[in-house]
Amino acid sequence: MRDFSADHRWLSINTATLRGAGRLDTIIEACARHGVRAISPWRDQVAAIGLERTAQLVRTNGLALSGYCRGGMFPAMDAAGRQAALDDNRRAVDEAKTLDAACLVLVVGALPGALAGAALAKDIAGARWQVEDGIAATLEYAREVGMPLAIEPLHPMYAADRACINTIEQALDLCDRLDPVPGALGVDGRRSAALGVAVDVYHVWWDPKLEAQIARAGQERLLAFHVCDWLAKTRDLLEDRGMMGDGVIEIPKIRAWVEAAGFDGYSEVEIFSSLDWWKRPADEVLATCIERHRSVV
Amino acid sequence: MRDFSADHRWLSINTATLRGAGRLDTIIEACARHGVRAISPWRDQVAAIGLERTAQLVRTNGLALSGYCRGGMFPAMDAAGRQAALDDNRRAVDEAKTLDAACLVLVVGALPGALAGAALAKDIAGARWQVEDGIAATLEYAREVGMPLAIEPLHPMYAADRACINTIEQALDLCDRLDPVPGALGVDGRRSAALGVAVDVYHVWWDPKLEAQIARAGQERLLAFHVCDWLAKTRDLLEDRGMMGDGVIEIPKIRAWVEAAGFDGYSEVEIFSSLDWWKRPADEVLATCIERHRSVV
Repeated sequence: MRDFSADHRWLSINTATLRGAGRLDTIIEACARHGVRAISPWRDQVAAIGLERTAQLVRTNGLALSGYCRGGMFPAMDAAGRQAALDDNRRAVDEAKTLDAACLVLVVGALPGALAGAALAKDIAGARWQVEDGIAATLEYAREVGMPLAIEPLHPMYAADRACINTIEQALDLCDRLDPVPGALGVDGRRSAALGVAVDVYHVWWDPKLEAQIARAGQERLLAFHVCDWLAKTRDLLEDRGMMGDGVIEIPKIRAWVEAAGFDGYSEVEIFSSLDWWKRPADEVLATCIERHRSVV
Repeated sequence: MRDFSADHRWLSINTATLRGAGRLDTIIEACARHGVRAISPWRDQVAAIGLERTAQLVRTNGLALSGYCRGGMFPAMDAAGRQAALDDNRRAVDEAKTLDAACLVLVVGALPGALAGAALAKDIAGARWQVEDGIAATLEYAREVGMPLAIEPLHPMYAADRACINTIEQALDLCDRLDPVPGALGVDGRRSAALGVAVDVYHVWWDPKLEAQIARAGQERLLAFHVCDWLAKTRDLLEDRGMMGDGVIEIPKIRAWVEAAGFDGYSEVEIFSSLDWWKRPADEVLATCIERHRSVV
């Protein structure tokens, strides 16, 4: 297991962590100021300053992208909606490629309408089939351009509105069906699956099969590793994630499992926290991320 | 699959659904007034009016108990804490027996301290071993007196503070280890496992392995079936459950699976809702439960 205590070279900042800090150019400047080597930006933040401007800032600051957030959201009520999702995912793959991201993270979607507050259908099995079809179609294009797709299993509390893939086991079963020979995609001389998983401790820490499924994923399918913490008193289902060390997740134990399986990429901090961290200055948030990365990740 | 549309003879009311209505005697009167044949009371509600008084009211009103809530909460920081939990579970078994409950429901507990807001330990694997030890000890006594124990797998969002058993699969694995020959306990001439599961749709609806694990449980291990609904916009992790039909759970589909596996008991309504239903009059809540039981369960 890598020693993170001496520096933060393996720290990546998911830019959603700094949603309170303003535009992406400001966020990137702050990251550079703190010696952060990698980020994972969100599409809406990129769109707000432009893809080319983002690419330029990423190059100028010598940043790596541990991932690009996000594709997915495949299920829809009709064929036109599903096609619109596929078109949008193709654009997301292109953007990820332009920014040279390590992977495109997929938040796969769930019951159509639920995210807006009123589910138009309750058929979660049907949503899961639509997700599989959507990933299959997107994967074809992603393979062509050489962009790995990372399915992010989301916590079951998001099964209605955000993602109906809710365990690593379920994600890997899907990977095995759509991409039976992992390691076929050579990106930057590194063996990688065309389709794998993003393991976010917030979503999976509770899973009794976590250790076994991380081992099953192996190096080829472990495309991203996200950290934050689960607060014992969580006040909001979406925007009350904790800073590493402030909650109950055994982050070093999970990182040890991920690294034992062969993962050697960035540890990406992704904290949605309108109730706390988004209210604080970017410099304080980043200094805390760095300190916690060295001490409790 | 049983037809519920004509009456509500298979409806049970978990008395937590009526927490806004006052004391247990008032709640029982209201249930009797609406022709409810079964309830599942909580220990604190029973304690408030006394066990003997409760038993008398249950008998007078000809009520069945679809379950008794609850035992569990096994993990603790030291041996004294664990022994106190075992003692308390033994009392819960006795109370369940006095009230002739179909089973004692176990909310098994999780990280010590987390329920009070500050976890004293983060070792979820350790908590799971403590749970297994606690159930093993309680099961010995429960077998003696003939009271089935129903492990309730709780939604993973409660893994820190309420229950570190979070899927039916995990619960059944534990059942198979501690009670390898289900059906050994004959209660009221009915074959029942000494140890089984309480399936609450709120906790398990998202599980991709739900259908298969319900089938695996079978009649002997399916000791209780709880219904409510998952609201697409859930505002609180604990007390914002929806009335059946107001959310996204395919309740009839899950009930069909449970009945196909052999379950023929009550459909127990358990709604924690400080944000809505606990504010309404008991008669309105019960009339709505009955209407929804007949139309959407």
